[in-house]
Amino acid sequence: MKQSKLFTKTAKTFPSEEEAVNAKLLIKGGYIRKMSAGIYSYLPLARRALDKINAIIREEMNAIGAQEVSLPALVAKEYWDRSRRWHTDVAYEFKSPFGEEFALGWTHEEVVTAIATNFISSYKDLPTAAYQIQTKFRAEPRAKSGLLRGREFLMKDLYSFHASKEDLDRYYQKVIGTYKKILKRLSLDAKLVEAAGGAFTEDYTHEFQVLTPVGEDVIVYCTACDYAQNKEIALVRGGHRCPKCGAEVKEENGIEVANVFRLGTRYSEPFDLKFTNAKGDQQPVIMGSYGIGPTRVLGTLVEVFHDDRGIIWPEAVAPFKIHLLELKSEEVSVRKNAEKVYKQFEKAGVEVLYDDRDISAGEKFADADLLGIPWRAVVSEKTGAQIELKARNSKNTKLVSPEELLKKLQ
Amino acid sequence: MKQSKLFTKTAKTFPSEEEAVNAKLLIKGGYIRKMSAGIYSYLPLARRALDKINAIIREEMNAIGAQEVSLPALVAKEYWDRSRRWHTDVAYEFKSPFGEEFALGWTHEEVVTAIATNFISSYKDLPTAAYQIQTKFRAEPRAKSGLLRGREFLMKDLYSFHASKEDLDRYYQKVIGTYKKILKRLSLDAKLVEAAGGAFTEDYTHEFQVLTPVGEDVIVYCTACDYAQNKEIALVRGGHRCPKCGAEVKEENGIEVANVFRLGTRYSEPFDLKFTNAKGDQQPVIMGSYGIGPTRVLGTLVEVFHDDRGIIWPEAVAPFKIHLLELKSEEVSVRKNAEKVYKQFEKAGVEVLYDDRDISAGEKFADADLLGIPWRAVVSEKTGAQIELKARNSKNTKLVSPEELLKKLQ
Repeated sequence: MKQSKLFTKTAKTFPSEEEAVNAKLLIKGGYIRKMSAGIYSYLPLARRALDKINAIIREEMNAIGAQEVSLPALVAKEYWDRSRRWHTDVAYEFKSPFGEEFALGWTHEEVVTAIATNFISSYKDLPTAAYQIQTKFRAEPRAKSGLLRGREFLMKDLYSFHASKEDLDRYYQKVIGTYKKILKRLSLDAKLVEAAGGAFTEDYTHEFQVLTPVGEDVIVYCTACDYAQNKEIALVRGGHRCPKCGAEVKEENGIEVANVFRLGTRYSEPFDLKFTNAKGDQQPVIMGSYGIGPTRVLGTLVEVFHDDRGIIWPEAVAPFKIHLLELKSEEVSVRKNAEKVYKQFEKAGVEVLYDDRDISAGEKFADADLLGIPWRAVVSEKTGAQIELKARNSKNTKLVSPEELLKKLQ
Repeated sequence: MKQSKLFTKTAKTFPSEEEAVNAKLLIKGGYIRKMSAGIYSYLPLARRALDKINAIIREEMNAIGAQEVSLPALVAKEYWDRSRRWHTDVAYEFKSPFGEEFALGWTHEEVVTAIATNFISSYKDLPTAAYQIQTKFRAEPRAKSGLLRGREFLMKDLYSFHASKEDLDRYYQKVIGTYKKILKRLSLDAKLVEAAGGAFTEDYTHEFQVLTPVGEDVIVYCTACDYAQNKEIALVRGGHRCPKCGAEVKEENGIEVANVFRLGTRYSEPFDLKFTNAKGDQQPVIMGSYGIGPTRVLGTLVEVFHDDRGIIWPEAVAPFKIHLLELKSEEVSVRKNAEKVYKQFEKAGVEVLYDDRDISAGEKFADADLLGIPWRAVVSEKTGAQIELKARNSKNTKLVSPEELLKKLQ
């Protein structure tokens, strides 16, 4: 894509009303716009990054046999009444012009359980699992962390249905493994942490926490073994000895990017979701639910991967693979060379953002650093038919031929 | 995918509470579930069909340089106030727990115009265009037509920005051409019809109408030339002479699957979206907006393509390309042959739904007709290592080898 044609532009200054680094950089770069507190529009560059995050999540969900659905945002009171979750703090509730009462879907256990009653009746129908990647709404009292705590945000929510607690446990571990894989593909180093059940369950649950000072959770973890608990339930405090192995325990802030819940029969019972077992007896279905927030992941990536000049996207989620900068010149050959490289790359299917704008080299370099595309390729009077290549996360440049570069990137 | 593993099942009977054919067939087939009046969940088979519809739309939008964005559903009162569209009949409006007032986005002119003020300032920034495929909410008083008139539905909305009325007109015609292409790819035969401006504009606008008795609009069109108007603004009535060419004019019902609007400065003025022209003067940006509803398209396809046994999907949108039926048999070879064909197809990337369930041949045939996948391939004692192939829209069967079939489908 030609940068001159991009729907957005970078800004010269940071937005004054944002505190969080992720919102500051993403707004300055033209990735997102804030519409109201905790509510953002995702513009073409952010949309491209989100598409990549979603594609990775979809691939891994499909790989464990989960099937994609789309559940509504308008969830009628009757659903929440059955699970006694009408009038939850975080819900946006309202009455329609026709007198129906709705809460905007902030989670979908109720809806998916109601649906499953139509399709699950025998142990032969189990296990099964459905997921969606969909907008969720939560009336968060604080909405100051940019994409880390939004009032309207994307969520991948997966729901699983089982004939026994053992089968749920197996699937729960499988999803934990899949989430590890997803987060690794997203270049996020996340800790598996034990946490309280929250609104979903009374059992302990697990969260994936990315340790970073801006995180709103506090994690207590062992420096030697895999002991890690959310401070809310932690058995010890930082500086003490690990309850599992006796090594030193640390405390750090974390961003919760994913979570997994054993729901048991919390929803199947009120919705009368039962199955007939092999002996012919009726039993409530055992459920699990599992979430990853793609927009929160986007914000977390910016928090983890940036420097004072801008974002440094990992390749897997970058909106483009390479940022081609044509430096302004009186010589026609510069434009010609740049255009040629651009066309070669487009033809080869390499995602390239081509800065063809009539602005100074300094502005182009600053924008390239701000936007954070993994590779920067400069064509100028100095480079001739060659390209000056630089990784966003390195200071070194080197001259390469377009053909070499193409080979490297494909 | 193995049908035994599908999250959904077909039902034996039609849903009692639905009147529209599209809702009846889609619910019986397990494609969708009704959650409240006008509000549906899209289950895996429908999700697959929607993915195909959306992919075609995206491809054609990108081809005309439009860039994908995602705008929020929670649109604050301040946006609607500026365009004087707060308290619109179709809006779901409510107050948040923090006292903010929102309307759920039923259209996004306000939001996209507000965003564009950050990026458009010069004639050099024009033209530009952004689109999204996103959930819209409309408090429709009647919601009895299944997916044809939902209260929560998918919409592809495109917004374009221009320096002059002439440039808008050019783009308007371009989008009409693109919509023709999209609808053709979706196998929908739609008429371009002149209509009133509605909530968006005072100019005449254009709609794409699929002529079918269940449509809620009435279209007056010429049997000889391209004259076609929505009855609301039609110059003549059915049976009369065409005002353009004098030939006979007919009246038929239609489903509006797409529309295009010249917005002019209706939104740029209240939002102060201006640009500096080549002479240095400030002018308001000229806008257009253009919609296609993917979920309405899904419903329309079912209305147009079905018989008394079920849906007949066009290949371009079918959830699977082929429905492989293994007929119950005592002979192990039947399962072995079917499994082999299934694996061959999956490996070749042919989308196949494999009915491996332990039910009667009659039930499998009935389900195949109901689900409406374009090709039915039967493996049975009778067929041996061959396959009995039948198109959903034909009565003829023929025996083919798996290799021949693979060649045909790839």
